[in-house]
Amino acid sequence: MIHMLGFNGSPRKYGNTFKMLRAALIGAELEGATTEVIHLYDLDIKPCLGCLSDEERVCKYPCVIEDDMREIYDKVLKADAIIVATPIYWFNVSGVVKNLIDRLTALENMVHHSGYSWLEGKYGGVIAVGNDGGGAQVVSNVAATMISMGMSVPPWALAYYNRCEDVMMVESSIMDAINVGRSLVLAASGMNVDRWYRRYKEDLLNRIKSKIEEEVRINYKIQSEMRKKIKERLKSLK
Amino acid sequence: MIHMLGFNGSPRKYGNTFKMLRAALIGAELEGATTEVIHLYDLDIKPCLGCLSDEERVCKYPCVIEDDMREIYDKVLKADAIIVATPIYWFNVSGVVKNLIDRLTALENMVHHSGYSWLEGKYGGVIAVGNDGGGAQVVSNVAATMISMGMSVPPWALAYYNRCEDVMMVESSIMDAINVGRSLVLAASGMNVDRWYRRYKEDLLNRIKSKIEEEVRINYKIQSEMRKKIKERLKSLK
Amino acid sequence: MIHMLGFNGSPRKYGNTFKMLRAALIGAELEGATTEVIHLYDLDIKPCLGCLSDEERVCKYPCVIEDDMREIYDKVLKADAIIVATPIYWFNVSGVVKNLIDRLTALENMVHHSGYSWLEGKYGGVIAVGNDGGGAQVVSNVAATMISMGMSVPPWALAYYNRCEDVMMVESSIMDAINVGRSLVLAASGMNVDRWYRRYKEDLLNRIKSKIEEEVRINYKIQSEMRKKIKERLKSLK
Amino acid sequence: MIHMLGFNGSPRKYGNTFKMLRAALIGAELEGATTEVIHLYDLDIKPCLGCLSDEERVCKYPCVIEDDMREIYDKVLKADAIIVATPIYWFNVSGVVKNLIDRLTALENMVHHSGYSWLEGKYGGVIAVGNDGGGAQVVSNVAATMISMGMSVPPWALAYYNRCEDVMMVESSIMDAINVGRSLVLAASGMNVDRWYRRYKEDLLNRIKSKIEEEVRINYKIQSEMRKKIKERLKSLK
Repeated sequence: MIHMLGFNGSPRKYGNTFKMLRAALIGAELEGATTEVIHLYDLDIKPCLGCLSDEERVCKYPCVIEDDMREIYDKVLKADAIIVATPIYWFNVSGVVKNLIDRLTALENMVHHSGYSWLEGKYGGVIAVGNDGGGAQVVSNVAATMISMGMSVPPWALAYYNRCEDVMMVESSIMDAINVGRSLVLAASGMNVDRWYRRYKEDLLNRIKSKIEEEVRINYKIQSEMRKKIKERLKSLK
Repeated sequence: MIHMLGFNGSPRKYGNTFKMLRAALIGAELEGATTEVIHLYDLDIKPCLGCLSDEERVCKYPCVIEDDMREIYDKVLKADAIIVATPIYWFNVSGVVKNLIDRLTALENMVHHSGYSWLEGKYGGVIAVGNDGGGAQVVSNVAATMISMGMSVPPWALAYYNRCEDVMMVESSIMDAINVGRSLVLAASGMNVDRWYRRYKEDLLNRIKSKIEEEVRINYKIQSEMRKKIKERLKSLK
Repeated sequence: MIHMLGFNGSPRKYGNTFKMLRAALIGAELEGATTEVIHLYDLDIKPCLGCLSDEERVCKYPCVIEDDMREIYDKVLKADAIIVATPIYWFNVSGVVKNLIDRLTALENMVHHSGYSWLEGKYGGVIAVGNDGGGAQVVSNVAATMISMGMSVPPWALAYYNRCEDVMMVESSIMDAINVGRSLVLAASGMNVDRWYRRYKEDLLNRIKSKIEEEVRINYKIQSEMRKKIKERLKSLK
Repeated sequence: MIHMLGFNGSPRKYGNTFKMLRAALIGAELEGATTEVIHLYDLDIKPCLGCLSDEERVCKYPCVIEDDMREIYDKVLKADAIIVATPIYWFNVSGVVKNLIDRLTALENMVHHSGYSWLEGKYGGVIAVGNDGGGAQVVSNVAATMISMGMSVPPWALAYYNRCEDVMMVESSIMDAINVGRSLVLAASGMNVDRWYRRYKEDLLNRIKSKIEEEVRINYKIQSEMRKKIKERLKSLK
């Protein structure tokens, strides 16, 4: 059975990035995969020290830095497919996503120790979400990184959303996200695929959306403290 | 059997772009594929008219423009895998490569006619070659385009070369190119792959290099007129 | 007085790319500049032959290729500022824009003949327009090219538009475009600038929009043949 | 007098990123500027919380997060020009640089409070350094960000270095870096510039290089603990 990790690179667990990510993971679950969401903002992932600039072979699993990345490495190693979902900050990934990517070098650089990248053969997808531009740039950059780390990026496994509105109102974008998950599972299963991209029936789509909205409601409550601070700041501005 | 097309987006049939492309195709042949090189500078491929900006459904195979792209469409449809090899001009593909990509929209846009992209399920790789920078940007951009057209990009199917020297002197780069071809065939064959990236033995590598050098010598003669004009211009400058 | 060239890289003279470009040029005219629109699709600009890959010094003004670029070189040399407006095709410029950029190398490469790039000191802006994503990527790529050719890119001289709707309905985007032109003139004039970005009053904005709409109506008529063919094709599809 | 900040986004204060940055700053000093290096790895700069995704106006100077960015904001506000020097990690900036950029939003977003970006009118340059590819992509991305925040990027203010060798051995790259600094000062001074890019005489170049090498030697000693750990790890690998 295929196991898929979804990284949420947004501080918000109730925003469009999370919604798109969950849609992708549900798409994967519909094809039989097990999934897990990892909220990067909940973890302590320090910046890469670039050890290999001094000595190429020094960089290896596990990284010298002892932080939450240790656990991530093991989760990544066990996963068949990975989705990186990031908000778009200045035409680029968020800083926490960049730290995740940089620290994954310790798995890729195993090529100098065991002869191959420990990410080789895994499947990768990317979701980029912003109010404005930059989506294409972000998914291109992360996809090229995944491929250069030894992963495959299958058809339609890149999705982006460039608007302010709640993505739940834009069915085509939710479908794009679901298809990221679906495509990854099909490719990772080596299935003889008829069609990678599927248009989901209204019925099913509504059920998926309800599911996501329910989760978002819960997360919204959990992150109420964050929102409260924002509201207070807003009030103080007036 | 896997059939692979290699597009040469450089005006030179004896330069580093061609050499890297041939290395990739030989890598594919070693895994049992048949291959064909298409020199874009020999063809008349006009710029895309962007018909779908007026009416989304108008863009379809075959494109309204009657030029050499007609033949390319049919070759692409028959191919299992495609490599786009481009020189890097200003951190980007050459103009002829851009026209090729834009005109492939007629196959991708079949999604609005037959329900799926006619490029879906094919495998793509990219090679970018320049004296300076821009390689990562070019392969990222073209890879994301391929994936968004319905193609897969397998591990290590992106290679770039950023130096002035003859690439034949830089074994690691030749090996990167060979592995682009190899990876595409393995992925397209749905083979249960042990390792996607292979380090080729000196022996074999030398035979591959000899083969490429022989072809380059012939092409160099064929394009002697082009070189003569360049030499004359150089003389007149002194 | 500042003279500004605006390149329209879209086949359509009545579409969003043209509208944004005209808004920028009107913005420049409001600051006292003279402007000219150049429709690249009306010209014969052949792909760069990359002569400098053989011999660095061979590439110089005027390019060995005798086509409409000859005239463009002279127009560019006389201009103080340049705007490249391009439709977004696959997260990138259109092919005709790529050919323009590649052929400008003949001016930049004068650094090897007269000691400096003949584009040095000019001011550049970029406008990218598409129905989908890619705007940020396109303006980043062209801006970096301009800067590496010796041009300056002043504040807010990059604008993109990522939607399907007529851009005339989205005031903030029209204002972004106007400000591209404004910023270029202010920078090129070496004026002691108070604010580079200006919010235009509804009154003035409406007059600018009327002017653009009038021009678009005329161009729409002129390109009626193009549209007729598209309509016929659409009919034949049903 | 022009004051310039140089951000070092590399963990190493003796590597190529630092060397290129120092060359740029010395280039600025030669034109009369005062300069300061800020080592981002010495600071605690937390990831952006993206508050404006909830409420656009909430994001303002100073950011709600209380960390070392507070001091950086004030230094940036006092600077006329800024250079971001980053190592290239996976065709992109390092994570600490990304956090810096994201957090600068608090100055740019003042447009919603005081009517203009507090970065408007400042001058920006970018230096990207790696063993491999990605330089063009990184400088393009950061330059477009600077321009979209209200800054100007003058001619030749973008430099990258794509090799493994010590950059001190590659004079043309050191000169590119010096010219980044020079160009920023000329532009920020509003000087009537004859030539933006200057080829430095061997004599002066050697003095600049000696100065950088001296600083690097000191930094190398200061960071001896870091290097010791790397050596130990290397030993344990054998």
